[in-house]
Amino acid sequence: REVRGGGVADYIPELAKVDPELFGVSLTTCDGQVYAAGDSNAPFTIQSVSKTFVYACALERFGRDRVLRRVGVEPTGDAFNAIVLDHENNRPFNPMVNAGAIATTDLLMHEGDAFGLEALLEAFGAFAGEPFTVDETVFRSEKATGHRNRAIAYLMLNSGMIEGDPEKVLELYFQQCSINVACRSLSVMAATLANEGRNPITGERVLSEAVTQDVLTVLSSCGMYNYAGQWAFEIGLPAKSGVSGAIIAVAPGQFGVAVYAPRVDQYGASLRGVEICRTLSSRLDLHGLRNRLSRVPVVRREYLGFDFASSRLRPEGDCKVLAERRQDLAVIEAQGTLYFISVETLARRIQNLSEASRFILLDFRRAQSVDPGALELLEVSIQREIARGRRVLLSHADPTLCEPLRAVVPRRDGIEAAGPLAFETTDIAIEWCEDQVLGEAAPASFEARWSLASLELFDGFSAEEIALLERHVQAFAFDAGETVLRAGDAARLFFVIASGRVAVTVPDLGGALTKIATLGPGMTFGEMALLDDGPRSATVVAEERLVAYGLPVRLFESDEPGFAEMQRKLIANFARQLSARLRRANEAIQTLL
Amino acid sequence: REVRGGGVADYIPELAKVDPELFGVSLTTCDGQVYAAGDSNAPFTIQSVSKTFVYACALERFGRDRVLRRVGVEPTGDAFNAIVLDHENNRPFNPMVNAGAIATTDLLMHEGDAFGLEALLEAFGAFAGEPFTVDETVFRSEKATGHRNRAIAYLMLNSGMIEGDPEKVLELYFQQCSINVACRSLSVMAATLANEGRNPITGERVLSEAVTQDVLTVLSSCGMYNYAGQWAFEIGLPAKSGVSGAIIAVAPGQFGVAVYAPRVDQYGASLRGVEICRTLSSRLDLHGLRNRLSRVPVVRREYLGFDFASSRLRPEGDCKVLAERRQDLAVIEAQGTLYFISVETLARRIQNLSEASRFILLDFRRAQSVDPGALELLEVSIQREIARGRRVLLSHADPTLCEPLRAVVPRRDGIEAAGPLAFETTDIAIEWCEDQVLGEAAPASFEARWSLASLELFDGFSAEEIALLERHVQAFAFDAGETVLRAGDAARLFFVIASGRVAVTVPDLGGALTKIATLGPGMTFGEMALLDDGPRSATVVAEERLVAYGLPVRLFESDEPGFAEMQRKLIANFARQLSARLRRANEAIQTLL
Repeated sequence: REVRGGGVADYIPELAKVDPELFGVSLTTCDGQVYAAGDSNAPFTIQSVSKTFVYACALERFGRDRVLRRVGVEPTGDAFNAIVLDHENNRPFNPMVNAGAIATTDLLMHEGDAFGLEALLEAFGAFAGEPFTVDETVFRSEKATGHRNRAIAYLMLNSGMIEGDPEKVLELYFQQCSINVACRSLSVMAATLANEGRNPITGERVLSEAVTQDVLTVLSSCGMYNYAGQWAFEIGLPAKSGVSGAIIAVAPGQFGVAVYAPRVDQYGASLRGVEICRTLSSRLDLHGLRNRLSRVPVVRREYLGFDFASSRLRPEGDCKVLAERRQDLAVIEAQGTLYFISVETLARRIQNLSEASRFILLDFRRAQSVDPGALELLEVSIQREIARGRRVLLSHADPTLCEPLRAVVPRRDGIEAAGPLAFETTDIAIEWCEDQVLGEAAPASFEARWSLASLELFDGFSAEEIALLERHVQAFAFDAGETVLRAGDAARLFFVIASGRVAVTVPDLGGALTKIATLGPGMTFGEMALLDDGPRSATVVAEERLVAYGLPVRLFESDEPGFAEMQRKLIANFARQLSARLRRANEAIQTLL
Repeated sequence: REVRGGGVADYIPELAKVDPELFGVSLTTCDGQVYAAGDSNAPFTIQSVSKTFVYACALERFGRDRVLRRVGVEPTGDAFNAIVLDHENNRPFNPMVNAGAIATTDLLMHEGDAFGLEALLEAFGAFAGEPFTVDETVFRSEKATGHRNRAIAYLMLNSGMIEGDPEKVLELYFQQCSINVACRSLSVMAATLANEGRNPITGERVLSEAVTQDVLTVLSSCGMYNYAGQWAFEIGLPAKSGVSGAIIAVAPGQFGVAVYAPRVDQYGASLRGVEICRTLSSRLDLHGLRNRLSRVPVVRREYLGFDFASSRLRPEGDCKVLAERRQDLAVIEAQGTLYFISVETLARRIQNLSEASRFILLDFRRAQSVDPGALELLEVSIQREIARGRRVLLSHADPTLCEPLRAVVPRRDGIEAAGPLAFETTDIAIEWCEDQVLGEAAPASFEARWSLASLELFDGFSAEEIALLERHVQAFAFDAGETVLRAGDAARLFFVIASGRVAVTVPDLGGALTKIATLGPGMTFGEMALLDDGPRSATVVAEERLVAYGLPVRLFESDEPGFAEMQRKLIANFARQLSARLRRANEAIQTLL
């Protein structure tokens, strides 16, 4: 408010009448939050800020090439109303000076479908999410006095740069300049540009992303006329000024801001508007050439996958095999946004690790998005490893995170797939690799091999004790998908898996079942029943055809000699198992934090 | 290589002699990886690409304001050798056309310390990380034939735009244009600009970040002469061309690229160079106005902190109090890079949650960096909550992540601090809030209140059994920092805490001790001794003056009646505790994944 230089534009008589002290600011975020201060609802005519949206309409309708044939994109260093034409290319230099804007309006009117005031108001309305009207008084004032624009139009007609009747083109041009807006609506229009062409209030897609980028580029280089270079230097945001005292500026991906303060400088730009934008840019650090790429290294961590075994609990023997083959699986955890340059780093790491490891797992859990331009290099890198005989696995390659990786079909098994294998979680991917390695090392280990004596839970039991228990076990069979035991049910048996595999699941906060472990042959579940006959704490589901043996826990309450001692040993073994699992869980937590 | 239009620049006789088929490309990343193809080591003279680095030197020496007084930053739409001067401001329009570059050289020579060829070569050498020399033949050829530049210099002398003897200024100007480079070195120079002014090979800071940003801005708007607008539109990278056939382009934060191919177009830019840059920009999606802000929501998750209790295990009664007061602590997990606009969203969530919760914990564990411009809003938001009587806590506000939050002194206790409290981890912060709430709810609960009968581990014990055991306990006292038991030692006792607090720690992968739990009065540790006399699995350290009671496990191996049954009950209770802890650990894992 302290800025008081300049004066109200007076070359259009109606504009000269406004209160020079009017002052409004509005900022609309890309998620549709509108902030406003001062006279943010005071109406004014949009004037040259309209050139932005008319040019956008032309690009959206006709595409870049057709529009470029009629209007260039070169900044000229000339004033907004300069009579300078690019006779070499037979087109005005750019669409943000009057000549270029008039040519753009002519293009809209005389190519393709009929385009007039109604279509124009509708298009502007989509940017703002509200209807607009023309200020007839200002329009008549501009029409009556706009002789310099008339001269420009006739010069262009003379050079064949416009096609229609100059008076009709100028009529629509003066109307577009006389559209009534307020800071609030103008900030939504700017936010639509910030939001890649989608109106953040209505959600409507008004422009394609490509057209939005083109419009922002032209605003960056030409939006502030012959102050554009200095503006880019000091403020560095795509912006457009109008002689009514309006300025819009766009922080791509963040917000659009509009200022209205009628006193303008020698470039026709609102003095307070420039000052507000300068302050915003410097305090909020918005300059477009400030490097906003994250400095966080793309590789968060590399480790050998078998050092952090999957949630599939495995017998001792298998664990030993995996420990011996730990070099087989290298895991690379990527983080942050994957730009071209972060994928370049990733590709170098992949190449390096695949010297020693034949499975390479890329964990995208902490990768937040993939820049489209980075994807090709990632694909090339993956294909190169596949060609070298490495298996490349992806985990957490969520379509919403890595949309372009969707082409990679998620697979649970099947070595025959040519491309990289995508797994929902790192855990499942590691388990799959474990299966591959164990299957090669000892195919027989996948067969039934159950005997009570071989189980950790029966460590320290004598042959007689084992024989006694084996007389009491019952065999159960379940089909894939069947529930073996259900959370909340009373616990009367504990189980040993003879063949097949089960998933241990617990309901998550939303009630959906989350898998916490996978168990295979020789593993036990339901042991909590040994402690009491309280309700089951988890639901266990057969993941494939399952044969399991159940031991009734009541057995150990028998008065026959030896049962009490067996129960004590069993519970102690169980506590030891729990303790080991707890330690592993705590290690996993430390790894994840 | 298929691009064969244009011709070798011939207005400097020596340049006309080069092989038009020479073709080299080099790309240097911000972490110093150099890629090269073709004739990337073929020498050529730098020509107008030198203007970039001379202008950078001037900005670095004299600052923005002094340089702006001599040379503007407005694109003109004119050719590189245009004789157009900004007589309004009495300075050349910009430093990338010949007039501006000559004025910049004059400024360097005639203000401040003496500046000549030696200083120039040294400055250029710092950008490239290697020494340079002048190609004397080309230099003499330029000097002998550079009459148009001579005219420009004398015109500027006439207008008082340069101070020195035009012939001396031109001598240095022709020398700077005749410096011998190759694609490889030029790509390192460009990468120094991409890397915010730090040479990625030598690590030397050559320019400040602010000057680098200014140089890139001028390259964006003026680097490609009267093709600059079209270049911005189609390619959108700061770039500079030279008539020898060199082009550099900068992808800020990612890499610098240099192309050498002598055939140039009517703008004096290498045809193959433009084509390479166009392809890179479109395939790698590098256009500067493409929105690169992450689309990941800044608020990853909100939850009530007491629903995920800290790793401090607490007695039942305390847990109940915390469950009743669960509304007291709201946790907001931020993720990604915090730009202005993400902090704006965060600030709205903070305001909203603080309606119901008096402790607000901001968890920055997954926040990767804070944009400096976002910090002020974050501070304002935090101060506002403090003024409303809310306690604001920060966790994981790592100085390297959130450098500017360093002003916030990390504190472990002390309600008296005025600012937000910063805690190393979320766990410690939640524990601190629990302590606050429990301290208010039942101050007495912090006093000693130990009795065996009150412990979960002795659930189901009769009064006689408790009395029998109490006769065998021994009291131990430890000072803060003392080790109570050490991983690897033999286990003979288990402990109950009477007063004070201990940290249970395990060595992490690097051997450092990581705390996995905190235990207070009424809690037990070392129970694994009940199962066997194997080595301790964790190290327990007193965090404050500790009084603990130890029970020798051998006791239960006594032949006296009742001890075996007590041992069975004790182990079953222990297994139940382990099972509950395991379930909680698994829940924590699910939360963290």
